[in-house]
Amino acid sequence: MAKLLDRIDRPEQLKCMSPERLEQLAEEIRELILHTVAANGGHLAPSLGVVELTLALHSIFHCPQDKMIWDVGHQAYVHKILTGRRERFSTLRKKGGITGFPKREESEYDAFGAGHASTSISAAVGMALARDLNGEKYHVVAILGDGAFTGGEIFEALNHAGSLGRNLIIVLNDNERSIDKNVGALSEYFSRINILPHYQQTKQGMENLLKKIPHIGEKMLSAAGNLKDGVKSVLTPGGLFEELGLHYIGPLDGHDIPLLQKVFSQVKRMDGPILVHVCTKKGKGYLPAERNPGTFHGIGKFDLETGKAIKQQGGPPTYTEVFSKTLVDLAEKNEDIVAITAAMPSGTGLSAFGKKFPERFFDVGIAEEHAVTMAAGLAAGGKRPVVALYSTFAQRGYDQLLHDVCLQKLPVVLCLDRAGLVGEDGPTHHGVFDLSYLRHMPGMTVLAPKDEAELRQMLAFAVSHDGPISIRYPRGAGLGTPMEEVFSPMPLGKAEILKESGPIGMLAIGSMVDTACRTGSLLKERGLEAAVANMRFVKPLDAELLRRWSEEKALLVTLEENVLAGGFGSSVLEFLAEENLSVPVMRVGIGDSFVEQGTRQELLALCGMTAEQITGKIAERYEVIADKGE
Amino acid sequence: MAKLLDRIDRPEQLKCMSPERLEQLAEEIRELILHTVAANGGHLAPSLGVVELTLALHSIFHCPQDKMIWDVGHQAYVHKILTGRRERFSTLRKKGGITGFPKREESEYDAFGAGHASTSISAAVGMALARDLNGEKYHVVAILGDGAFTGGEIFEALNHAGSLGRNLIIVLNDNERSIDKNVGALSEYFSRINILPHYQQTKQGMENLLKKIPHIGEKMLSAAGNLKDGVKSVLTPGGLFEELGLHYIGPLDGHDIPLLQKVFSQVKRMDGPILVHVCTKKGKGYLPAERNPGTFHGIGKFDLETGKAIKQQGGPPTYTEVFSKTLVDLAEKNEDIVAITAAMPSGTGLSAFGKKFPERFFDVGIAEEHAVTMAAGLAAGGKRPVVALYSTFAQRGYDQLLHDVCLQKLPVVLCLDRAGLVGEDGPTHHGVFDLSYLRHMPGMTVLAPKDEAELRQMLAFAVSHDGPISIRYPRGAGLGTPMEEVFSPMPLGKAEILKESGPIGMLAIGSMVDTACRTGSLLKERGLEAAVANMRFVKPLDAELLRRWSEEKALLVTLEENVLAGGFGSSVLEFLAEENLSVPVMRVGIGDSFVEQGTRQELLALCGMTAEQITGKIAERYEVIADKGE
Repeated sequence: MAKLLDRIDRPEQLKCMSPERLEQLAEEIRELILHTVAANGGHLAPSLGVVELTLALHSIFHCPQDKMIWDVGHQAYVHKILTGRRERFSTLRKKGGITGFPKREESEYDAFGAGHASTSISAAVGMALARDLNGEKYHVVAILGDGAFTGGEIFEALNHAGSLGRNLIIVLNDNERSIDKNVGALSEYFSRINILPHYQQTKQGMENLLKKIPHIGEKMLSAAGNLKDGVKSVLTPGGLFEELGLHYIGPLDGHDIPLLQKVFSQVKRMDGPILVHVCTKKGKGYLPAERNPGTFHGIGKFDLETGKAIKQQGGPPTYTEVFSKTLVDLAEKNEDIVAITAAMPSGTGLSAFGKKFPERFFDVGIAEEHAVTMAAGLAAGGKRPVVALYSTFAQRGYDQLLHDVCLQKLPVVLCLDRAGLVGEDGPTHHGVFDLSYLRHMPGMTVLAPKDEAELRQMLAFAVSHDGPISIRYPRGAGLGTPMEEVFSPMPLGKAEILKESGPIGMLAIGSMVDTACRTGSLLKERGLEAAVANMRFVKPLDAELLRRWSEEKALLVTLEENVLAGGFGSSVLEFLAEENLSVPVMRVGIGDSFVEQGTRQELLALCGMTAEQITGKIAERYEVIADKGE
Repeated sequence: MAKLLDRIDRPEQLKCMSPERLEQLAEEIRELILHTVAANGGHLAPSLGVVELTLALHSIFHCPQDKMIWDVGHQAYVHKILTGRRERFSTLRKKGGITGFPKREESEYDAFGAGHASTSISAAVGMALARDLNGEKYHVVAILGDGAFTGGEIFEALNHAGSLGRNLIIVLNDNERSIDKNVGALSEYFSRINILPHYQQTKQGMENLLKKIPHIGEKMLSAAGNLKDGVKSVLTPGGLFEELGLHYIGPLDGHDIPLLQKVFSQVKRMDGPILVHVCTKKGKGYLPAERNPGTFHGIGKFDLETGKAIKQQGGPPTYTEVFSKTLVDLAEKNEDIVAITAAMPSGTGLSAFGKKFPERFFDVGIAEEHAVTMAAGLAAGGKRPVVALYSTFAQRGYDQLLHDVCLQKLPVVLCLDRAGLVGEDGPTHHGVFDLSYLRHMPGMTVLAPKDEAELRQMLAFAVSHDGPISIRYPRGAGLGTPMEEVFSPMPLGKAEILKESGPIGMLAIGSMVDTACRTGSLLKERGLEAAVANMRFVKPLDAELLRRWSEEKALLVTLEENVLAGGFGSSVLEFLAEENLSVPVMRVGIGDSFVEQGTRQELLALCGMTAEQITGKIAERYEVIADKGE
């Protein structure tokens, strides 16, 4: 049977559709998303939750004239399907395909890109101001989850938006979750509001009630009027937002298309900043996702029938799993260890710690700034805080790492998961800047393990280190290296020499140690011998090794899964310059541009970082050096 | 006459003092602060405003067992004077002297260091958690201004604190100002609350009122009960905080010591997170400061009698002044230019722009994250936003610069004032990381002018550049270079060669160009000739110049007022390695540690960055090279 969806190429087509047909469309969209994500992996539950909301929005607003800004952006699949990307939707998250997040370069309907949370209202304020300055007339609509609301930038933006008074529509998509269950006082606040089923009636009832009380009622209103901030609160459930200068409307059933259409039509005619509070069910329409929205937030390929992830069985554990187990092991022996996550207990592997030591575990919401400074406070109070973040999200805590942790020399352990190229999530999520931004912080020790077994050892080292320290490790499975249960001492700033002989010296860090070893084998096939060092520490560097190899080797090659600008290789160059040591250095890493999406292997190849590519480059370079030497 | 203050060495001594004696002490403290800041410069108005508050706090709490955390920290002078640093207070902000901010290394009474705003509640939450885990009993008190409340990290922390429910005292010092007048919806909210003089009575009155209404009153309460979030709001003026799970007390007269003592005594016995709202007058007790709290927020030496700043007359304009005027000039011709500041209209020099183009000027509060993303939104809307921040505070927007500006290639102009060593404000305020953190962002163009005249030209270049771009310039006066009113074209990525000949090539950026020239003269006195290039661009580098000089020169010297790790010199090393160019490179810049406070000259000398020191190092190094060459 021909699908309605097959004919939808532009969102304008929704405007003349009946609620029944929109409902049908909703079903068809769910089916398309389910099949695509089951095959490609992706963010399933967030997009399933906003099917009706997105249809309602696009049936009332006029995009691309009106600007829709999707916070974080992983809930924008429906928006993408409705705005000319339906046919290419099967390429979701693939190299060269549709991206998993809004992207200005991809479509004129994507008014503002996203990937990190809590930026949408700031962007919307900027666009609304630009609109007014340009004398243009259009609506700016920011759509964000209650999870994103825990990020401080949202409050900075609300504080500003509330006082500016510009026309601006904020849709709060309240599903009580970020990835995991939401935390924090604001989340509890939303839950309290949600108890109220009939806002309009209740408000009306209250006003009528007040009017019915002669004298006393007026006195009441007058008393409440003195308490200016109170009177509005008692009449509406969104008092908190009203206090900040926003009109609050809600809560509304986010799966009721006609209701949403009616409200958005009204809202379009209202002035000032308006917050529309919509309640949705994450994973709506797919039972496994409704039951386990956390698992189905972002997921790899899975079986549509059973809802089970399609995984290779029996492979090596992921770095996350090793981190998870090791931290529990260490925390059993050291009760000072506490752990902090920013809305990612399962993603970072801290759930296990949280179950075992609930009183020592803190999920602060999507709030990396607070996470880092709070860790500094815990360290100042004598604890050993471990902050586990994705590398890309830790960027939010840059200033706090410098100002609160490093400047005060506090022993905070920063564990950066998903460091390096993360694959299908693309440029907003690659964790390829951390070596550069961490190593220029005075007093920060910077480590990266060559495999999952070394991660275990490094974590033990880190929780005993007296000062700021960070460990970064890649997304996904380890190399299958056997684990040592016992913790062995690891000398500060010492590399592990894996192969000593040969005129070429490869200095590799983290995930690139394995690549260096494979490169070494490939070079051998070409008759070239290369030494390999697992550097372990980006900071402090192994000075002794660098001095020696700079004398003994004809070429040094640095390898890192990080931008070359200011990264590990750069620190080697700095060291050599500082010590007046002269040896040719070739740096392997990520060039000066954002890396797109694709499989990790595709992206490494794109960056010229496979063992084969590196072998070619080293051989070519070494040939020139050897020729000169002769 | 002997002063009371002369006998105060520990805050415990305040406990048995009568209110009258505390008042007398307040006068003496004001006098000491006034005389010291008039002589040394410093943050005057904030500390004058909290004399009574600090006395009350220290007379009720038991420090250092109890932990006092002063947000931003510039209001902690009274605290310092009362906690054993009275006698050394005359060394305030001098090299080796008392620092202008709380510092853990300086005193056990400084529970947590500060300098940047909005970190105190996060730190307090961390310390409260540590206390509870350690089974200790003490109070944790965070004191912060309403200005700091506009920073998003405060909301991240409140959201967490409100749900944790731990014992924690937050003192909101409400003086309606950050440095300039506060902005934002929250500020308006505070003002509304402050209209209420008698909170206790009003609350009581409201409750009595409700009880007096039979039936209807109960129905009212019950209706309000359904609207759970509303009922508390109507009974207290701090509903916004109550919604977030905090007990709210206030507003209180922050200059009434007995009242404050009474409230703090009660608060000590209460459980859970408590917010005490205290209203103070910034600059209290010194008329010129009361009248112009902005001017007296942070001030250089001034005449105590007249309140006039002691300035050398007729010197060159500051970089800030040149930026200020130039932006207005440019904005007159280009109406797309808009300007954004984060609570620093006067500090950044944007006040002039704001006066001339009020509708194109936006002060967002202490909210650098929002400032940067909003600028990206404005750029996406077709405007040309100029975001003016202090270099050190721009660190807060690191992620937004990467994720919202650079990734989307949006033409946001970032102007970083106070880049380099700022002097007496010390390590929290030096802007010495920006070249490192900006240059590894793909697509970011990074400039620094050699003098104030070049700043003018660069700003014109920047507002015409199609992409993310940043200019950093130092604190204080320019070099007195004559200004060109006319804007001349400046080719992207081209250095200005100031002197071509000589075997030594100095590659200098920004403030260090002048030092390089003076170094050149000193080298000449020693019979050495050195070329000098004003690099102008840290990114993109002048490839042609670097290629040529790497061939022609025997030694390249890079000079930057930035950390060496990942900085400008590092980028030169990277370029040379990338191009297989081999030439000795000596890098001059700031080493891998935080730089203390002192005059800029003292600090430059401490870092080995005066022309004399650099001359010595170059001569020494060149001698070795020349010897080898012979």
